[in-house]
Amino acid sequence: MTTLMTPDELEARLRDVGRRRYHNLHPFHRLLHDGKLDFGQVQAWALNRYYYQAMIPVKDSSILARMEEAELRRVWRQRIIDHDGDHDGEGGIARWLTLTDGLGLDREYVTSLRGLLPATRFAVDAYVHFVREKSLLEAIASSLTEMFSPGIIGERVAGMLKNYDFVSEQTLAYFEKRLTQAPRDADFALDYVKKNARTPEQQEAAIRALEFKCNVLWVQLDALYFAYVDPKMAYPGAFAPKETR
Amino acid sequence: MTTLMTPDELEARLRDVGRRRYHNLHPFHRLLHDGKLDFGQVQAWALNRYYYQAMIPVKDSSILARMEEAELRRVWRQRIIDHDGDHDGEGGIARWLTLTDGLGLDREYVTSLRGLLPATRFAVDAYVHFVREKSLLEAIASSLTEMFSPGIIGERVAGMLKNYDFVSEQTLAYFEKRLTQAPRDADFALDYVKKNARTPEQQEAAIRALEFKCNVLWVQLDALYFAYVDPKMAYPGAFAPKETR
Repeated sequence: MTTLMTPDELEARLRDVGRRRYHNLHPFHRLLHDGKLDFGQVQAWALNRYYYQAMIPVKDSSILARMEEAELRRVWRQRIIDHDGDHDGEGGIARWLTLTDGLGLDREYVTSLRGLLPATRFAVDAYVHFVREKSLLEAIASSLTEMFSPGIIGERVAGMLKNYDFVSEQTLAYFEKRLTQAPRDADFALDYVKKNARTPEQQEAAIRALEFKCNVLWVQLDALYFAYVDPKMAYPGAFAPKETR
Repeated sequence: MTTLMTPDELEARLRDVGRRRYHNLHPFHRLLHDGKLDFGQVQAWALNRYYYQAMIPVKDSSILARMEEAELRRVWRQRIIDHDGDHDGEGGIARWLTLTDGLGLDREYVTSLRGLLPATRFAVDAYVHFVREKSLLEAIASSLTEMFSPGIIGERVAGMLKNYDFVSEQTLAYFEKRLTQAPRDADFALDYVKKNARTPEQQEAAIRALEFKCNVLWVQLDALYFAYVDPKMAYPGAFAPKETR
């Protein structure tokens, strides 16, 4: 039997999901932050994560399309603006491409998605389908990994700048912006979930949605680890690093 | 520039996809067939693959729903009948549960999907979404991995019977049936694709669809290998084998 939690109890449960399942716990992230990856492995990470970044505004547009109140849409649309910018070369996706440029990856190759690991595509697409098929409450709750992102971003930027001579503050500019955007977005989404999860079933569904999203992030790192850190065989068609400086 | 192939040239290209990317090439399958997996690892394989089996009739119903000709639907519906049977306890899904029963897995636990690896779910769901969102030609082409399955099934059944005392002809009955069903299904689908892929673009799309499906199978084995053969850490919530006899 599940019983109704207070909004603050629900928040505590949601934060606990992050403590147990957020991808800062994944061994690939430890290697990334601690400077233990070589150039080609960092390239593979940036290349694959590009697809996640590129699909975030598609995911958010799918959520926007399900919001029936202008008040909600006015807030949510900012996420799409943040990622797409106002002009070519602006916004979060463009800042991610600054990173892949800085890592020597050909932009046409990155955006073609030709080198993507299939598991990256399946995980990211699962996220897009999730927000279209589940309730609006679950769709919004699935975004709550942003509650946990300032911690990992701080750790990542400091660790990468210290350990890799092939990244710079400029190529990591994406993360700088997210340090202010993510908490603003997460505050709104958390407030929405706390107010709108009004039955034990809805509260349980919100927790499951956040676990699902943690899986989306985790599976991407599993795939990177299996393909590039400890490979059993080359993945047909996927990105193969040329340099390991 | 792609040029139009003859139907037989297209068939040769499709068969070549299997030769390069079918999951009989995956190291997990080698371990499975060669008797190198322990009891818990075979359990994990059967448990995860249950979800693939369970979703096959959902996938085929989605394809059926897109066929506008009774002639096509009359043929395709047999796939659903084969998997679901006429009565409780019959059909391919029930035969898969005979295998998980035989491996000592609780049936309620298996069908609850609680122990599933997230990557299994993402890969299988990607297949269901693919046949709903792509063209009917691509949906049908994606089923063509069945062209390659009699080989792997023969190898699997012989290898497993020889190497594992915890499987029997009875628990492997699922595969026996597939030895006749799969070639019948594959012949029809191959004939359809050869007749209906009439432009270079359609032929290319059919090849890509089969590559996609190979990825769906491959990613499932990657996830099993990473979680159960060479794990870096336990996956939160996923099936954890208790015995390793």
